[in-house]
Amino acid sequence: MSNSHVYKKVELAGSSTKSIEDAIEGAIAECSKSIKNVEWFEVVETRGHVTDGKVAHYQVVLKVGFRIESN
Amino acid sequence: MSNSHVYKKVELAGSSTKSIEDAIEGAIAECSKSIKNVEWFEVVETRGHVTDGKVAHYQVVLKVGFRIESN
Amino acid sequence: MSNSHVYKKVELAGSSTKSIEDAIEGAIAECSKSIKNVEWFEVVETRGHVTDGKVAHYQVVLKVGFRIESN
Amino acid sequence: MSNSHVYKKVELAGSSTKSIEDAIEGAIAECSKSIKNVEWFEVVETRGHVTDGKVAHYQVVLKVGFRIESN
Amino acid sequence: MSNSHVYKKVELAGSSTKSIEDAIEGAIAECSKSIKNVEWFEVVETRGHVTDGKVAHYQVVLKVGFRIESN
Amino acid sequence: MSNSHVYKKVELAGSSTKSIEDAIEGAIAECSKSIKNVEWFEVVETRGHVTDGKVAHYQVVLKVGFRIESN
Amino acid sequence: MSNSHVYKKVELAGSSTKSIEDAIEGAIAECSKSIKNVEWFEVVETRGHVTDGKVAHYQVVLKVGFRIESN
Amino acid sequence: MSNSHVYKKVELAGSSTKSIEDAIEGAIAECSKSIKNVEWFEVVETRGHVTDGKVAHYQVVLKVGFRIESN
Amino acid sequence: MSNSHVYKKVELAGSSTKSIEDAIEGAIAECSKSIKNVEWFEVVETRGHVTDGKVAHYQVVLKVGFRIESN
Amino acid sequence: MSNSHVYKKVELAGSSTKSIEDAIEGAIAECSKSIKNVEWFEVVETRGHVTDGKVAHYQVVLKVGFRIESN
Amino acid sequence: MSNSHVYKKVELAGSSTKSIEDAIEGAIAECSKSIKNVEWFEVVETRGHVTDGKVAHYQVVLKVGFRIESN
Amino acid sequence: MSNSHVYKKVELAGSSTKSIEDAIEGAIAECSKSIKNVEWFEVVETRGHVTDGKVAHYQVVLKVGFRIESN
Repeated sequence: MSNSHVYKKVELAGSSTKSIEDAIEGAIAECSKSIKNVEWFEVVETRGHVTDGKVAHYQVVLKVGFRIESN
Repeated sequence: MSNSHVYKKVELAGSSTKSIEDAIEGAIAECSKSIKNVEWFEVVETRGHVTDGKVAHYQVVLKVGFRIESN
Repeated sequence: MSNSHVYKKVELAGSSTKSIEDAIEGAIAECSKSIKNVEWFEVVETRGHVTDGKVAHYQVVLKVGFRIESN
Repeated sequence: MSNSHVYKKVELAGSSTKSIEDAIEGAIAECSKSIKNVEWFEVVETRGHVTDGKVAHYQVVLKVGFRIESN
Repeated sequence: MSNSHVYKKVELAGSSTKSIEDAIEGAIAECSKSIKNVEWFEVVETRGHVTDGKVAHYQVVLKVGFRIESN
Repeated sequence: MSNSHVYKKVELAGSSTKSIEDAIEGAIAECSKSIKNVEWFEVVETRGHVTDGKVAHYQVVLKVGFRIESN
Repeated sequence: MSNSHVYKKVELAGSSTKSIEDAIEGAIAECSKSIKNVEWFEVVETRGHVTDGKVAHYQVVLKVGFRIESN
Repeated sequence: MSNSHVYKKVELAGSSTKSIEDAIEGAIAECSKSIKNVEWFEVVETRGHVTDGKVAHYQVVLKVGFRIESN
Repeated sequence: MSNSHVYKKVELAGSSTKSIEDAIEGAIAECSKSIKNVEWFEVVETRGHVTDGKVAHYQVVLKVGFRIESN
Repeated sequence: MSNSHVYKKVELAGSSTKSIEDAIEGAIAECSKSIKNVEWFEVVETRGHVTDGKVAHYQVVLKVGFRIESN
Repeated sequence: MSNSHVYKKVELAGSSTKSIEDAIEGAIAECSKSIKNVEWFEVVETRGHVTDGKVAHYQVVLKVGFRIESN
Repeated sequence: MSNSHVYKKVELAGSSTKSIEDAIEGAIAECSKSIKNVEWFEVVETRGHVTDGKVAHYQVVLKVGFRIESN
């Protein structure tokens, strides 16, 4: 990272019926539609919902960091 | 919660001269003016200001989660 | 507390449309139906659900401690 | 979640030679044999054992929440 | 706050049979008898005692901040 | 540990007038009367009561892990 | 602080080749270009990059609080 | 504990060449010379100094709670 | 440190328009006016106030340890 | 584990373009080249880098425990 | 401590069938065989194994600090 | 960072009579004498010693990350 940038971090929660990675990737894809320059994420919390004794879906809370473009 | 949504969480601080619940409800009402689909909150911190040996007002820091509408 | 007792702690979540205290008292009342000798609680987490921009109900996660009767 | 229920959370550790998700699903399946109304889980800790320089199995510690049926 | 003051924080526990707010206000009132210039508090812990399946009283642990008068 | 077991953890508090180890051993002995297959413990909190300026007894909060027997 | 305001907190990371304070001041200056009524910051994390055995730049993660203007 | 008392907590560090319990008991004895009504302690941190490859002494940081006498 | 002393820790907040170190040094200097034998400090929290998009002053919360003189 | 061993823990970060498990397994394999008797790992942090709105790779920080051979 | 030294901290786990102090002292003695200038330790975690309803051995995780000799 | 590297993190404490940054830079310089490929640091703890009511030196505990060269 260059040393003159400022970054902002937002907190997101994504979910997936398949896996933890799929929940992360879905949240990153969704937030990249409206936020430019996403550079990294940090997993804050991993959890999920259970239906009929089975994992129905995984939920992952992320902090997502992106570069603010100065003007 | 449906398993295909992505949620965003923002951090807010509300205050009230009356009670902790009133500070929470004020912050939720205020942020709902500009954010749609608010679904839950988590209390992060409870504090307050003191004047003349009495609680002047309660301050509650919340994380507020809302569903991002995909388009 | 006498110094020869052993205590167990269980984690519960109660909820209320009215207040944080009401959610705590409901969870204590409910668990006291099946657990004897409940002596104290500790609030672990305070959160809630939001509907139409208003707090729909408070949810409080508690650890509840009770004395195990030795025999 | 309806606002008049009380939930209990128990802490479990599951393991799997395959993946983190498989360890979670095994623990959820096992506890659902004796606990009714399991609704969610939270990952508390992810760890594992190593044999001959390879991951022998993943161990995941979960908090599992279930609805207490009032009577 | 003016930027030349030094503040001290003390940790207190108050209690009340009525509510969390009442326990906070009692502790603030009591410590204000001997400490001047109390300016804020932070809730560190919320807990309580249970008697006969009911909340007997709430206990709230606070950090209380006050301005030290330089001379 | 074999990799196909599921473990449960419960939280206990034991006490002793003598030492921290004695409080731990008392809690383990007591819970082993009703729980089979206890395998490990983790100290969560160490505290105690004071009477007349002396430690009256130590209190130790433990998480205790035991293997669930599948059937 | 008046007791009827609602505040929002955002998380930022600034950097500087010079000092921790310079990284904080750069992030505050940058975010003040787009956010009005910034009132305080809290340092969440201090870190940095190293090149050729020397600190190349400091990175400071901040939470920045600003007053939301109600309308 | 009666529900109308206010308690104060102070943070102390005691040490002993012998044991963790001895360091706790020394700190409690010392602080009881100047503080009345000490009722409980919580261990915050356990550490120690090493000389010539041996534990020279244990250091235990405690929070000590005492009842404030209202007048 | 000799192994027969008991130490007390107090929590202070100092501030400075200039730097984090200046806020620490001001708080240490101020508390040394009334407390003898101050030996160390630990930074608990670093924050600050912002005016017109600039850092107005740094605030640093410290724990300060001092030796209690036994008599 | 036998009760007369001493273990050391080191902190590692591995990465993978594929999955969290793959990042863990890569770090374990790499450190096993130079460290003998690795017995367990604990996941400390899960994060990753993002390029063009997609997860470029996962990064997992581990604590890895190994038995020290006494001689 | 002189102010021009650099210290390194390593994380160790020792165990003992007898007591927490004995587990600490064993780990310190073992690591002092290969590390010079060990000066202090901090207890990170206290746990243990249970066999037949009794504590089989205590395990203590330590951070151990030693002075690096510059050359 | 390329996604096929493995990193190790070590914990160091540096000190300086001058400033927090100077303590960080001293520790980084010292560890770079014996460790190659140091890439980043994270501040874990900031503290210091006090003599005669003045800060005698700052002590900063760092985690320092470096790339392991595979062979």
